[in-house]
Amino acid sequence: MSTAWTSRYALRTKAVKSSAIRELLKITQKPGVISLAGGLPAPEVFPSKRFDEACHKVLSENGSSALQYGATEGYEPLREMIARNMARYGIQARVENVLITSGSQQALDLIGKLLINSGDRVLVEAPTYLGALQAFNVYGAEYISVPIDQDGLRTELLEKALRLGPKFMYVLPNFQNPGGTTLSEGRRHELVLLADKYGVPIIEDDPYGQLRYEGEHLPALLVVDRENLRRDNGYSIGNVIYLSTFSKTLAPGLRLGWIVAPPEVISKLVQLKQGADLHTSTFTQFVAYEVARDGFLDEHVKLIRKVYRERRDEMLSALTDFFPAEATWTRPLGGLFLWVTLPEGMNSRQLFQAALEQNVAFVPGDSFYAHDGHEGSRHLRLNFSNATGDQIREGIRRLSVALKSQMTELQLVHQ
Amino acid sequence: MSTAWTSRYALRTKAVKSSAIRELLKITQKPGVISLAGGLPAPEVFPSKRFDEACHKVLSENGSSALQYGATEGYEPLREMIARNMARYGIQARVENVLITSGSQQALDLIGKLLINSGDRVLVEAPTYLGALQAFNVYGAEYISVPIDQDGLRTELLEKALRLGPKFMYVLPNFQNPGGTTLSEGRRHELVLLADKYGVPIIEDDPYGQLRYEGEHLPALLVVDRENLRRDNGYSIGNVIYLSTFSKTLAPGLRLGWIVAPPEVISKLVQLKQGADLHTSTFTQFVAYEVARDGFLDEHVKLIRKVYRERRDEMLSALTDFFPAEATWTRPLGGLFLWVTLPEGMNSRQLFQAALEQNVAFVPGDSFYAHDGHEGSRHLRLNFSNATGDQIREGIRRLSVALKSQMTELQLVHQ
Repeated sequence: MSTAWTSRYALRTKAVKSSAIRELLKITQKPGVISLAGGLPAPEVFPSKRFDEACHKVLSENGSSALQYGATEGYEPLREMIARNMARYGIQARVENVLITSGSQQALDLIGKLLINSGDRVLVEAPTYLGALQAFNVYGAEYISVPIDQDGLRTELLEKALRLGPKFMYVLPNFQNPGGTTLSEGRRHELVLLADKYGVPIIEDDPYGQLRYEGEHLPALLVVDRENLRRDNGYSIGNVIYLSTFSKTLAPGLRLGWIVAPPEVISKLVQLKQGADLHTSTFTQFVAYEVARDGFLDEHVKLIRKVYRERRDEMLSALTDFFPAEATWTRPLGGLFLWVTLPEGMNSRQLFQAALEQNVAFVPGDSFYAHDGHEGSRHLRLNFSNATGDQIREGIRRLSVALKSQMTELQLVHQ
Repeated sequence: MSTAWTSRYALRTKAVKSSAIRELLKITQKPGVISLAGGLPAPEVFPSKRFDEACHKVLSENGSSALQYGATEGYEPLREMIARNMARYGIQARVENVLITSGSQQALDLIGKLLINSGDRVLVEAPTYLGALQAFNVYGAEYISVPIDQDGLRTELLEKALRLGPKFMYVLPNFQNPGGTTLSEGRRHELVLLADKYGVPIIEDDPYGQLRYEGEHLPALLVVDRENLRRDNGYSIGNVIYLSTFSKTLAPGLRLGWIVAPPEVISKLVQLKQGADLHTSTFTQFVAYEVARDGFLDEHVKLIRKVYRERRDEMLSALTDFFPAEATWTRPLGGLFLWVTLPEGMNSRQLFQAALEQNVAFVPGDSFYAHDGHEGSRHLRLNFSNATGDQIREGIRRLSVALKSQMTELQLVHQ
């Protein structure tokens, strides 16, 4: 009988694409492969020693609280610290606006649980973060996709999309995953005004906001919404739910993210979170607080910026050196990814196979679209945070070999 | 606008009762109150020093893996250890049968996500674990309640309930929360056979199984199912999904639980977990493995059994010493809770108020029923794991004062 679970009990899942990616990422773990596929931080910069000291302090001074059940909202000193840190980026929030989540991924799941009824439409960027689609799919989301260009979401196409009645918009304004693009300031204003006009809330996902390598910080949609619409009470927050995480600044293995929202939304999310996992690990919250405090996080983010900026630059110069003129790519101002467009007639799935033979891996672009089809077939996402500079250069060289051999095969090269 | 989120965006939640409990538990945190309300382990027995050593070892030897993203299935050495440990309780599982979850609560959420479509019926015990109802409510579960007695779920009522077509059964066979009862061996066999006959899977929740203070260990439903029905391949597991946790044996602040299920079910759950939180904290998994290894967990569980057995005995003798003859209570063989039945005519909500005036708290029984109504109004759940022996004795004394004054008020005492 047990082999008949799926048919007998009509198991519910709707995540075929994510499964495919999982399989793909497994392949890239083959020894000798340089992987530009995942979205992993550089392990060399994890502050292991500081973590060790923090664990010792937490366990020797506060073990019985740190190992005990905790509040669903999260560890209050950590929530306060997050509120203080965000203030420096212009985001005014109080403790009651902040909910700790088990990574940003759980924030997406809770948002889906709160807002999506089966058949509801969600407006997403094309391409967008695969994990968000996965989180929303389970609740029966349908999608309205709006394409991005080098300045992020194409807001000139937004009004038409909003007329289709999405339940909410999901947007990554900074150093988008996978596009590597940043939403321009003008478009931030347009987006916020249109969202208000049509009464559609914005979910602003900002995992990389602090990892800017050049240019000026642009205001979060949360801030633009408040300022543009002259919200009378800052802490009621407005029409934007903002998500961020410690995964890219401290360590993803902690699974610590957070949601900023109006208190009434937080209180609903708290109820849902209680049913989902009671609360996020008390221990990792205590430890993250001890690690981050006394200005350590700020200094550490500076180090990460330096390392990743160098790796981005290495990738950009390798692309210039090795790639054929027919390919183009984004030049991200921050974050972890850039987005390559292949010459017309090429297919990134086919290139993936050829690349593996050269011992280099990436994620084919079609994975990042809510709607199946050809949109992503000429694109690839490249990660520059995880591999070292030398590996990145060698990886891009290998990829260019695969790319050129494919082009020759397809007779796309002028001989 | 922001104050209109709930009405404007039709936020979905269905967890009113859980909210009420949260409020109630907050009251019990008032200084001076002896709380017998929560389900917290004794913090005195947390092995903080062992944790400290484990953290140091993990971070100095393995920091870059322990702080990095990990596999959704969980940390393989931990999954192997869990499989080995369960074998001693007769549960034969391979690594591929084990999924690490962010506490048992996440296991319940993932089960709900996998199995429940809105309007599906779930068969539960009356009373049952409140957190399960919370997890299932979100997916639109309806309930079929089957009462328990001193030998657990009343299986003689089961066939009638199964004819109503539940999607699955949710059962806590050992030292039930809140009842403190244990399902008898005979009933385990009946339950498993009926589940098979009606094609209804069993979700076996076993957070306290290792915390038995007297008597012989009884085989898990998972084991009974396999043996009774002569499953030909043990690792395909059969008709039971089994849940357990480190929350009661190591520390709840880790948020580490696990699911044992057939591989095809695990693979679906993995997809859902990926969308829910990507994976459980790598760091807490590495640390738990280091803490538990080399037989430490077994020795530690012996210590916990000793401490909790003494506290249970203290509560039982205090109840005998102080409570009026008209009240009765269960005598749990393990776990964290016992269940009091008040004299007829009394109401545990009213008693709760009177008890608070005496600075003692418990959870009123009506909180643990899927169906609202009077079923639970004469019951209270008492926890004996968190307060010390002296506090327990004093708490029961105070509660008896409140109880007797209520009885006098209601003229239930023969003067």
